[in-house]
Amino acid sequence: MAGRLISVARSAYQYPLLIKQLLHAPMLQTPDQQIVYRDLRRLTYTDLPRPDRAAWQTTSRCSVRPGDTVGVMDWDSHRFLEAFFAIPMMGAILQTVNVRLSPEQVTIRQSWPARRCSWVNDEFIGLLQRHQISAQQSADVRRPHRPARAREGRRLSSPRNMRSSSRQPPPNTTFRISTRTRRQRRLTRTGTLVWPKGVYFSHRQLVLHTLAELARLEARPEQGRFHSNDVYMPITPMFHVHAWGFPWRRRRRAVKQVYPGRYAPDVLLKLIKTEGVTFTHGVPTILQMLLSAAEQANVDLSG
Amino acid sequence: MAGRLISVARSAYQYPLLIKQLLHAPMLQTPDQQIVYRDLRRLTYTDLPRPDRAAWQTTSRCSVRPGDTVGVMDWDSHRFLEAFFAIPMMGAILQTVNVRLSPEQVTIRQSWPARRCSWVNDEFIGLLQRHQISAQQSADVRRPHRPARAREGRRLSSPRNMRSSSRQPPPNTTFRISTRTRRQRRLTRTGTLVWPKGVYFSHRQLVLHTLAELARLEARPEQGRFHSNDVYMPITPMFHVHAWGFPWRRRRRAVKQVYPGRYAPDVLLKLIKTEGVTFTHGVPTILQMLLSAAEQANVDLSG
Repeated sequence: MAGRLISVARSAYQYPLLIKQLLHAPMLQTPDQQIVYRDLRRLTYTDLPRPDRAAWQTTSRCSVRPGDTVGVMDWDSHRFLEAFFAIPMMGAILQTVNVRLSPEQVTIRQSWPARRCSWVNDEFIGLLQRHQISAQQSADVRRPHRPARAREGRRLSSPRNMRSSSRQPPPNTTFRISTRTRRQRRLTRTGTLVWPKGVYFSHRQLVLHTLAELARLEARPEQGRFHSNDVYMPITPMFHVHAWGFPWRRRRRAVKQVYPGRYAPDVLLKLIKTEGVTFTHGVPTILQMLLSAAEQANVDLSG
Repeated sequence: MAGRLISVARSAYQYPLLIKQLLHAPMLQTPDQQIVYRDLRRLTYTDLPRPDRAAWQTTSRCSVRPGDTVGVMDWDSHRFLEAFFAIPMMGAILQTVNVRLSPEQVTIRQSWPARRCSWVNDEFIGLLQRHQISAQQSADVRRPHRPARAREGRRLSSPRNMRSSSRQPPPNTTFRISTRTRRQRRLTRTGTLVWPKGVYFSHRQLVLHTLAELARLEARPEQGRFHSNDVYMPITPMFHVHAWGFPWRRRRRAVKQVYPGRYAPDVLLKLIKTEGVTFTHGVPTILQMLLSAAEQANVDLSG
């Protein structure tokens, strides 16, 4: 009888921790939940990320393969949210570009060659061209009223600088957090004392961080807690440490999400009131800007 | 320069998901949080699990090795909570015994031989002896006022029946959920139509389940949510599917925990009022028993 005592479902022990799995529960539970981009776009969870969308297809046309790096230069948007999921789900590495850095830091030669393709808001095309990074096709990810296929991120490649990186990420690492690559020069920028650095995160790390932070923030009895009826808007840029990881958490939690584009106090205030934003996060400088604007415009932010 | 672009902290990608890691945050944040056993014991988080405690030492004296199975026969208690952590932290397999099953099912020969050692409430010693499972040392895990070294679970082994199991768990599986081992006979017991089955869970599965359930339950805006100021008491037995996994979650969340021993309506009602219990879970039969008792005793359970 001993041989019959136990039977093991071995597959159950190997469930992989991948970014795409954060989509399963919200897509089952609340597929119609809203994703809002300023006063320009209103999507549902079923719209993003979707392999038939223009951004995804454009990336595919660049012949992006697993392990390749795809850069994103944009303000906070539904496009950036799509990039948070679509690029790693293709097996590629998302490289968020901090557009607040100096042009030299944004365009340092060392960071571009590794990129196979980038999604670029056309606001930044001029900057890239001035630094000899040519846009083979211009990209306009800002304009809201173009047909879908022409609206989203486009191919941007620089044949002169295009060569494969001599360093590959470790096998289970398919996510790169930042455009900031490490050099030996020292510089006082972006709140640190060193030249911008690059950091890799794996799918596993980001999924575990998402779960752990969901469990942490939502456990608070009152102040600072986040629950499933909240409306979320970031005021920490998505290019900055993944907006502290909130977009993955908010998507997993299936809440309504509001993306404000470039941070302008009047736009932020308007979105908070019209969309009913109840939860955000930011550094004191931005929050002070927001509070001052609210006082001047006589807007009540209570609640 | 390309060689300097990226440096990878490879160790960061391999952080293992082990039961012991659920203790890190609560031990740092709220080491003095309370664990209450009826009106008999009042411990803090620092007391459990601790390798210098009697239960742990007794298990060690059985020469338990990684991969061995340790059975637990007890009502809901601080000892059971210790077992939830201490046994897997030794690399052994926790086998929770459903003491509500028939004596034949509890003592089926097929389930005992694999056990190296058991923690047994002395209430069940007689049952084991009647079924030719001899207790070399009697165990009394109920009495509260003995010296610590004599109070906790003791060695219970049956040389006649003791032999190693012919099936070993898979390499990353060091946790076994249930005493219920599978046979081909059919029987209508414990709410199912089949003979009790055995199921293994790995550390990884239980840690992920803990995180995912923490994130889920605490996200609710009002009804049914659980937060860090709650006081927890199980009314689903710890021998039954790990009390739905709540003890790991409540420990990780660092809340005050109350364990009622064998479920007696008067004890449950008293603990709810005196300890300020705000969160529990149970099946309708038990809850109905509790509500009837509250009505008879004129106890107000509102809140």
